[in-house]
Amino acid sequence: MNRNAIGMFDSGIGGLTVYQAIKEKMAGEKIIYLGDTARLPYGSKSAETIIRFSEENARFLMEKSVKIIVVACNSSSAHALPRLQELFPVPIVGVIEPGAEAAAKWAKKRIGVIGTTATIRSRAYEIAILEKKGTWEILSRDCPLFVPLVEEGWGEHRITRLVVEEYLLPLKDQGIDTLVLGCTHYPVLKNAIAQVLGPEIRLIDSALTTAERVFQMLKKRGWLHPAEGTPEDDFYVTDFPERFQKVGEIFLKKKILNVEVANLPGRT
Amino acid sequence: MNRNAIGMFDSGIGGLTVYQAIKEKMAGEKIIYLGDTARLPYGSKSAETIIRFSEENARFLMEKSVKIIVVACNSSSAHALPRLQELFPVPIVGVIEPGAEAAAKWAKKRIGVIGTTATIRSRAYEIAILEKKGTWEILSRDCPLFVPLVEEGWGEHRITRLVVEEYLLPLKDQGIDTLVLGCTHYPVLKNAIAQVLGPEIRLIDSALTTAERVFQMLKKRGWLHPAEGTPEDDFYVTDFPERFQKVGEIFLKKKILNVEVANLPGRT
Repeated sequence: MNRNAIGMFDSGIGGLTVYQAIKEKMAGEKIIYLGDTARLPYGSKSAETIIRFSEENARFLMEKSVKIIVVACNSSSAHALPRLQELFPVPIVGVIEPGAEAAAKWAKKRIGVIGTTATIRSRAYEIAILEKKGTWEILSRDCPLFVPLVEEGWGEHRITRLVVEEYLLPLKDQGIDTLVLGCTHYPVLKNAIAQVLGPEIRLIDSALTTAERVFQMLKKRGWLHPAEGTPEDDFYVTDFPERFQKVGEIFLKKKILNVEVANLPGRT
Repeated sequence: MNRNAIGMFDSGIGGLTVYQAIKEKMAGEKIIYLGDTARLPYGSKSAETIIRFSEENARFLMEKSVKIIVVACNSSSAHALPRLQELFPVPIVGVIEPGAEAAAKWAKKRIGVIGTTATIRSRAYEIAILEKKGTWEILSRDCPLFVPLVEEGWGEHRITRLVVEEYLLPLKDQGIDTLVLGCTHYPVLKNAIAQVLGPEIRLIDSALTTAERVFQMLKKRGWLHPAEGTPEDDFYVTDFPERFQKVGEIFLKKKILNVEVANLPGRT
């Protein structure tokens, strides 16, 4: 058993879907979450900058003695994992590889991948899926309105349903059998997406697949912490804690009480 | 007459509505446009950072010998004008003051102000309007989905119409007689907004009011350049020229051919 906390970071708030999935899978674990809200979005930044920011975020978590670091951010997962694995002695888990693995496991013929414009441009999921050596065809599309719709709290809104149709019916028409939700915000839209696509298309929720991966890694090492009471989690952001609390409630369906402002080690 | 160009900058692409309005009003003027796409959005940054970025943008334009600088960005207009006016010998025009002046001129009782979350939080329009010493009531609301809808090219989309209703019918119900479009992206949605609000509510388009202000300032100084042929404008961005070209077409309804990457003086 390892009583240390699970550390996780994201460029902002989307990582809360991964937080939630870990919480549901491993109720006994304490989580320390860092959202780098002062410097988001990462997607539009260069690889070097993303690596530097990720390093600073991970260092902040390491100082809190975490036993594993979950990189709950697509841009960091695409660019910074090798560097973080080189620098820090704890296991590092990103969101892309578990999603890609699940897609490769379930897909028959055609895989759809959706994400922010930056993620789709990076082709990170496509590359990770194709490394699994299948013969799938991969259809990608960016859905720039999904993140603002989620952050507006419109996950169940009739307008959101229309936007989902607009973006995803063409993928359905092209015969995808599997859809990777390649953005940590998108699990909030899972109901709306499932209603539009119907039961035949399997949705790969990278929050769930990442939580499963974390569970397996801790289990293998004998580091799981059995549920005994409800550990209090710590939330840190680099800017605007009030906004994080407000939008966080949309993700967690409850108030986040203790949000502190983090002074990242690399900053002056 | 002054043959030098009009310089303008924005954190990104929204300033193109101001560009377009200046172009329609003063066909003889050459414009040099700088979009700081590498560092957008400005709205979530501190005042000091916005001032520093604005200074660098203005310095870049000054090196091209512009005769006036148009700050086509709400965040820069709210924070950086005094500093720019102190530093540079040419007239500096922001987008907020002309919009506030027009609102104060036309409003009877209740003024609505819409903008991004950052602009509404800053209360910049509210403050500028109240300085005009009227007895209006001001109702503000942020419309976070408008910018992504515009950038998606959905200005005329049925979904956009529904989002406009969702955001603006409450303001209409509260009896506003004037609505300030307090974001440089919003003129792209003017038709949709006018259809929802009807002819009784006057829309203040800050792109048009800013162009009018520029015209008056150049005229007063005898610096207007009469239309003779079509001067070729220069566009600079600090990142992703392809995206600027693609989304720029939504704003200008034509291709922007010559977009160059700017090396800002303040950068290494």
